[in-house]
This record gives sequence, C-alpha cells and structure tokens, in this order.
Amino acid sequence: MKKTLLILLTGLFIVTTSARDVYQTQRHSWLEKAEAAKPVLLKTICNPICLLKSVHDSNAFQGWKMERIADMDSLYKVSFKTKKEAIADFGRHLTGNISFRLKAIDNTPDAPVRLKFTFAEVPAELNTPFDPYPGVLSRAWLQDEIMTISQFDDEITIPRRFAFRYMKIELLGASPYFDFSISGITCTATTSAIGITQKLADTTPPVIKEINRVSLETLKECMQSVYEDGPKRDRRLWIGDFYLQSQVNTYSFKNHNLTKRCLYLLAALAADDGQLHADVFETPIPHPQLGVHCLDYSLLFNSTLLEYLKTTNDKETALDLWPVVQNQVKYALGFLNGNNIFDPSVKKESLWLFFDWNDKLDKTVAMQGLLIFTLNNSCQLARLLNKEQEVKEWATISLQMIKAAKKEMFVPKQGVFLSGNQHQLSQLSQVWMILSGALTPSEGQKALKVAIESPISIYPVAPYAYHYLIEAMIKCNMKNEAKKLLIDYWGGMVNKGADTFWEVYDAKNDYLSPYSFYPVNSYCHAWSCTPAYFIQKYPDIFQK
Amino acid sequence: MKKTLLILLTGLFIVTTSARDVYQTQRHSWLEKAEAAKPVLLKTICNPICLLKSVHDSNAFQGWKMERIADMDSLYKVSFKTKKEAIADFGRHLTGNISFRLKAIDNTPDAPVRLKFTFAEVPAELNTPFDPYPGVLSRAWLQDEIMTISQFDDEITIPRRFAFRYMKIELLGASPYFDFSISGITCTATTSAIGITQKLADTTPPVIKEINRVSLETLKECMQSVYEDGPKRDRRLWIGDFYLQSQVNTYSFKNHNLTKRCLYLLAALAADDGQLHADVFETPIPHPQLGVHCLDYSLLFNSTLLEYLKTTNDKETALDLWPVVQNQVKYALGFLNGNNIFDPSVKKESLWLFFDWNDKLDKTVAMQGLLIFTLNNSCQLARLLNKEQEVKEWATISLQMIKAAKKEMFVPKQGVFLSGNQHQLSQLSQVWMILSGALTPSEGQKALKVAIESPISIYPVAPYAYHYLIEAMIKCNMKNEAKKLLIDYWGGMVNKGADTFWEVYDAKNDYLSPYSFYPVNSYCHAWSCTPAYFIQKYPDIFQK
Repeated sequence: MKKTLLILLTGLFIVTTSARDVYQTQRHSWLEKAEAAKPVLLKTICNPICLLKSVHDSNAFQGWKMERIADMDSLYKVSFKTKKEAIADFGRHLTGNISFRLKAIDNTPDAPVRLKFTFAEVPAELNTPFDPYPGVLSRAWLQDEIMTISQFDDEITIPRRFAFRYMKIELLGASPYFDFSISGITCTATTSAIGITQKLADTTPPVIKEINRVSLETLKECMQSVYEDGPKRDRRLWIGDFYLQSQVNTYSFKNHNLTKRCLYLLAALAADDGQLHADVFETPIPHPQLGVHCLDYSLLFNSTLLEYLKTTNDKETALDLWPVVQNQVKYALGFLNGNNIFDPSVKKESLWLFFDWNDKLDKTVAMQGLLIFTLNNSCQLARLLNKEQEVKEWATISLQMIKAAKKEMFVPKQGVFLSGNQHQLSQLSQVWMILSGALTPSEGQKALKVAIESPISIYPVAPYAYHYLIEAMIKCNMKNEAKKLLIDYWGGMVNKGADTFWEVYDAKNDYLSPYSFYPVNSYCHAWSCTPAYFIQKYPDIFQK
Repeated sequence: MKKTLLILLTGLFIVTTSARDVYQTQRHSWLEKAEAAKPVLLKTICNPICLLKSVHDSNAFQGWKMERIADMDSLYKVSFKTKKEAIADFGRHLTGNISFRLKAIDNTPDAPVRLKFTFAEVPAELNTPFDPYPGVLSRAWLQDEIMTISQFDDEITIPRRFAFRYMKIELLGASPYFDFSISGITCTATTSAIGITQKLADTTPPVIKEINRVSLETLKECMQSVYEDGPKRDRRLWIGDFYLQSQVNTYSFKNHNLTKRCLYLLAALAADDGQLHADVFETPIPHPQLGVHCLDYSLLFNSTLLEYLKTTNDKETALDLWPVVQNQVKYALGFLNGNNIFDPSVKKESLWLFFDWNDKLDKTVAMQGLLIFTLNNSCQLARLLNKEQEVKEWATISLQMIKAAKKEMFVPKQGVFLSGNQHQLSQLSQVWMILSGALTPSEGQKALKVAIESPISIYPVAPYAYHYLIEAMIKCNMKNEAKKLLIDYWGGMVNKGADTFWEVYDAKNDYLSPYSFYPVNSYCHAWSCTPAYFIQKYPDIFQK
C-alpha cells in the first residue's frame, strides 16, 4: 500500500517516494481502531422448516414459485438414495454456514457419496441452469458446491458461507452397498445487527409495515464484520452502500461501532494521495480494491462521517478522520472549471462516476449537485469540529457552484436542469440539485414533476438511485409522492415475494441484470434497504 | 459391534446377549495394540515435473497417451484466465494431498474463482467423461473436485487425499476484473513404506527389474496407516490383499509393525461369533464392514499370521491371536460334509467366496484346496506356538480332505481336478489343490498344463488369481513357465505404461471393468504388487 521504498546503501538511507503518502503517520492507528471496533458476530442456529418443490408459473417472479410439499422428517427419515433430491426452506433469508449429518440406514458405508448443494436467495436460482454460464461476473459467485463426503454420523460443515433462503441437495453418486439419510441440517446464521428496532405506529399501513420488515432483514443480513453490499455478492464494503446502510442503522439497530469500524477501514486503506478507494476487503488482511475510485462514492464518506458525528457525538473519530474529509473535497474541487462547473475534462485522469446503473445517464449535473451537497455537509462537519477556519472557502464555492449551475445548466422556462452537451433531462439531475439546496421546495417539485412526467427523461434504474429520489421528494415536501413511490417500488418487490430487497429491480422486467445473467444478481442488497430509514425518520409521512 | 444389551429395570440388571462375543475380553487390548503399532507416515513434498497434453492414440492403453508440452513455468508464470486448462505430470504415482497458490497478476481479486481438479492414475481418467456415470460403484470414487476459492497468495490445500500421477486443472469461473496465475503446486505424498529395498542381482533381466520397481511402487502407495487395497479405491484393509501385501513387505520394506497392526485390527473387529470381517475401516474409529465375510479371505488370516511369526518370531502376537486362527478353521470345517468335502449346502448360511473376479468359476475345488492349505499352515503355526494338542485333529482332517478330493474331484485319466456339478475345468482348481499339497510336483505340472492348454478351461482374470497361479507353478517346479507368465502378465502392464500395477488387467481388453466403467478401476492395487515377492524370494528363477 505504501509506495515508500527504503534502500540501505553503504550506510546511507536513500528514501525514494514514488508518491507522498498523505496518511503515512495515521494509517496504522486507523487500522488498529478499525480492528478494535470489529463486532463479535451474533450466531443463531436456524433450522429449515419444510421441504418445497419448484413450480413453473409465468405469473411468479422470474417464472418460479415454491410450494410446500412435506415436513423435514420426510427428508430426515428416509433413504436419500431413493429421494435423490430435496429442497429445504429456511423460511427467511440467512447468511451463514450450513451443517448436516449423513447417517447410514442399513449397511456400513463403504464409499464416499457425492452431493451437490445449491443455495438460492430467490426461486429462479434453483431452476435456471448455471452452465454454460453467460454472465459477466465470476461464475464462482453462484452458490453451488459439489462435495465428496466420506464422513458419516459426524456433523459436516460446508466451509463456504452462503446467503440464501432455499437449499437444494442433489445426489450425484453413492455406493450400491449401503443406503443413507441426510439429517440435522442447520444454518449457523451470523449478523452484527444486534440492537432492537423500534416498533412502528399502529396507524402504519400494513404494506409499509411489511416494507419496513423486509428492509430491516436486508440490512441485518448485510451487517457482518463490515457493512457488506451483499452477503451473496460482492461481500465487501462499498462506500455508496455504506452511506445508506449507516443511515438505516441509525434508525434501527444502532450498531454505531460498526459504522466507526468502516469509516476507519476506508480511511486506513485510502490511496497515498488521500483518495478513498471505492471498496475494501477484510481478508486475509484489510486491503482495498487497488486503483478503483468512484468520485461520487468518495465524497459520500464526508456525509457518512457527518451523520455519524451527529448521531454519536464521537468527536474523537470525526477529528481523527477530518483530513480524509478535506482530501476528498480537495480532490473533487480540482475538477472545477473556471466557471465553477464540475468538468471531467479539466484533469487528464480517468474518472469513474456511478450514481446509477443506467449507462445512458449524463452525470454532469448530478455530480455538480453531489459536490455542492458534499461541500454543504463538510462545512457542517467543520462547524461541529471547530474547523471552519481550515475550509472557509468551501461555503463560498458551494454558492458559486449553485449560481453557475443555475446559469449554465438550468432552463428556467421548463424549471429543470439539463445535463451535458446533449442537454439531457433526467430525474437524477433534478434529485441531486435538490439535495444540493440549489432549488426551493416549490422549484424542486416543479423540476421533479417535469422530469418524472417527460417521456424522454432518463429515469432511475437501481434501488440506490431510487433512494435519493425519495430523499429529494421529501426535501421538496412531496410527501404523498414519496410515500407512493416507496410503496410502488419496494412494495413491488414485497408483492413479488422478496424476503430481502434486491440489488436490481425494474417492475417491468423481472429478468433485468447488469451482469447478463439474473441469477448472479444479489437479492439481498444493502443499497435497497433504505425504506426503514424513511419510515422511521419521517413517521408523519410513512406511519399513517 | 457388541450386541450385548444392558437394561436397567427397577434395580435389576437384565443381561440380554443376542450372540456370545467370543473375543469379549480381548477386543479392547487388541485395538490398543493395533493403535500402538500405527505407523507415523513418511511425508514427502513432490513437485510436478512438466505439463502434458492428452493425445488420442488407438495403440495406447485405453486409447490415450500423454505428451510433454512445456515445463511448469508455462503454467506458473502465465495468466490462467488465458490458459484455462493445464495437465501437470508428477512423473510417478503419488498418494497424498495437493497444495497450490493463486496469485493475482494485475488487479485486486474481487471475486472467487471456480476451478475443477481431476486427478488420474492413468491417462484415460482425464479423457473419459465421468457423467452421466454408468458405473456400479459410487461415482464419488472418481477423483474430480470443484472448488470455489477466494483465498489468494496463501497456500491452499485440497482436503481430499488423492491417488494419482496426473492432475488436470480447468477454469470454470473467474472475474473479468482481475487475472491470476496458479503456482507452487505440490503434493505431500504419504506412505508407511520406509525401509530400503534390496537391490536385484546384476544378472536380472531389465524387464524384471522394471516389473520389480513397479511392484514396489504399488506396494509403497498402498502402505498407509493400514495396508490399503488401493489408495484411490477402496482405501481400506481387505484380508485378501493384506495376505499378499504382507508377504511382499517381508521381501522389501520390512515394516512388520504395519502387518502386526493389521492383524490386530482385523481380530479386534471380528464378529461376535469369531468370524473375521472381510474388510475394515480406520475412521472415524476402527470398524468393520458389518456382515461382510468372505471365507477364503478369512482363512488367509491364518497364513498371514504364520508368515508374520516366521518372519518376526513375535510369538506374543501370534499367541494373542491364536484364538482367531482356531475360530476361522472351526467355522470353515462346519461346511464339511460326511465325505470330508467342502460343501456350502451343509450350512443354511449365505456364503461369499471370492478367489477371482470370474463369475463363471466354480469354487468348490478351490475352496477344498484353500481349506487344506489353511489347515496345513495352521498346524505349522500350532507347532511353532506349542499348541498342537489343541488342534491335533487338523492334520488328520487335512489328509482326509486330500483323500476325499482325489476320490471325488480328481479325474486320474486327465490328471486334473474338476469342480462342481458341472465338472468344470479351471486353472484355479488345480492351483489351490497344488498349494494344498494334494499333488506331487509332477502331478501338479500335469494338472496345470492340461488346465492351461484346454480351450474350455476357466482361466484367471484378476492379478490376485494370477499370483496364486505363479505360486503354484513355482511349487511344481515350473520355473520357466512362472517366469514367462510373470513377464507376460505384469510386463504387459509395464509395456502399456503402468506406473503401478492395476486392479484389473486382461491383455486382450484394456477396457475391462468389473464395475461397468473402467475409469473407476483402481490402477494402483495391492493384490497386483506381488511380482517383487517372487523376484526377491526366488532369485534363481527371476534374477537371472
């Protein structure tokens, strides 16, 4: 990570620094603090509740529904050589390790058995052939494992951690000389979501109660020894997901230590120039996905730290990580052109902006908005830490950027921001300019309504983007619209049987996948867990 | 194992014994002695020597030969995402655990990889689709494993022990965002064959030197913490294989402690009525294949113990196990009819006799011969242990059985024994009557020659049966024939590329399998390792 090279040459130290490491003195202590805040995972032994069969149904999500066929004893107490296949239902999404036993039911086992296990978050994962694999991401994310087992009676634990509700077992090989049964299937499920969440008001509509429940299940499953983006895939800490998770956590499980750990981990694993990496890994030792930076994500670190400070009043951590906040802003401001417009062409650097899956989205206005949003939050953080003097120009730049955006990107007649050379109209452009404070609530309402109603406007795709749309609606006092959207979008997933909220959801296309193979989508994904945040934070909108 | 049932009923012990356990007082100490004699395995780190490709060749054994294509660096130093498949050659048969490393060669690994490993004793195992599996034995014996690996840089060890020379690696899944190489493949090979074997005389023909070498490799690979029948399959102690292995061991590695361990294990795990089980397992705790008895195997325990005593002079062990010797004979004598002929119909019990794979073989004469052979060896054992008084009738019965066989089974005109109601002529009938001592060398020669030359005679199939044929030839002073057969049969395997001798070998049919799928045959099999015994024991025949 550190590129400092020490060469001992005839008694002389020559220090070659290929790039100055701006956090050289802090990294070690940041990593130690991240380690000290590592949660002890809560382990729960969960049993499957029944056996299911898959039923093709074109009305069901992705074409498959599951039907209960028998209780577990009809697996546990019969020959698996006869049965050959079974699907167990754990009744809810779990993240953890599976154990089971094989028991000989007649003669002495004289050969290993070969079993295939497939773990699924949604029914279609059990019913879509994985091979030949057409997907973009690694085939190895798919949760099927083949095991050769010689061990009888003892408990066998599959080493790989799975994220799933359904467990399919298939017999691939057995000896003709003995029979056996499978029994004692358990999942040791883990989470660091230990706190008790607040009950909703009795007036809360049932659909919102259900959305809230599924949101919290989603967050709980993603809360492991870091905030993972998805326990099936990618199983790591991404800043964008983290920002949303930590806010839901504030309104639910209140495991603020996990937020602290992730803030420190990201900081400790930043690049030498101070830029955060978009995602980091915990094992075998904490390390970043080297060279992968996402500017909108990096900037959200600042807002995450602000919310953490406001929630916990942990000034020590906020002061410790203040240099990281400064560096993210400093780096982003380097992209401003002479007119205070964020312009990637200013720097000769490759730049990754995310905001949403939609490749068609022009991100210029959104980035202008997110940078203003970040400046405002970072100034608020500075005030809480008595650091205003260090960043006094930020408030000014924020105002200049708003002014510039209104001048260069806003079309007063229509009341909307248009993005890029093609003057693209999109919902997210309005969303981020609203969150930046550039528009009054009534201006914001108008902009959003135009962008939502226009048939040529680019609409959000990922639940991640829908989160900011709802946040913007609430900021513009569009309470009914926010509530309706939450019920339509997340309630849509609930109606389609979601146990946890999905990484990708388009009401019109159950098979949408950014990876060319929908079974490799994550069906328990952090950035989709935010309804609980809205429901708890804005009871006057959602709990009546 | 013990069927004694203790029921505590209102202060009263009711002891229900479904069958008296004849070894009740000894079992525990026998197991302890087996455990005390358990060898510490010699572990050797072995590296693959080069990369190979499979070449279809109708002249090669089972249609495939391997050709060297590159050194290991052409795997270790290149992208495996590009290479996708490799076959490593360890240059010899090994039994042990495989370790390797995955190294990222550009970006940070962001997803698991999915690899398939196939381990093969012979080339066809790499080139014959395993599925859909047509074989009789468990599909799980085939040595292919699919692994999902997230661990980079660290050494990864595949938990399953393999028996193999060739290792194929195939890429089933990887991330588009990083590349990796596979390196540092090693096999930690194990054996309990630690002694140094004696060099052959310089006069030994090269083909016999080679047969001797391959024999010893075969035995070495099968010598683990017991004498296994085959390290790929069935990986356990079978009495029939054990008898042959222990004799080869006497003339090679001289690990007599392993023989002692196996004698005690078999004894400790015998049935309550005293009968030995045909095979036993070591893990998780020593246990027999319950209910599986093979009478010809059981009786060979006695000869194994005799040879052990003659080699080691360990009277303590022989005296300890003397009751087992007596019980095997006693049980077998129960099958004699009034005319001193072994007759399965005497007892109303199912009886398994092996002798050879050949289902057509009538085993009546062979069993008569093997029982006489066992009586003779058991009497010899009794003399060495001063136990003649306990079994004084055995010598008499042996003579009566010879007399009866000559009367009822022998056709003086042709000079051969004919077996069963169909008066079947077979080589093995003559073999076992020769080994029983019923025929003089010249009578034996005549019988064997007739049986070998007759077109309707049943010939041996398994190498196990060929062993006894050679032993019988030597006993009849058919030195040239014995030598020629050894060179033809085992030399045939050597000529076809055997690194170790095979479980099944028919010069005329490379694809022969008793299990309906030749890749599941064992290609390193204990009962085929006996040429080294002959070569060392009879230097005047084989070493010139």
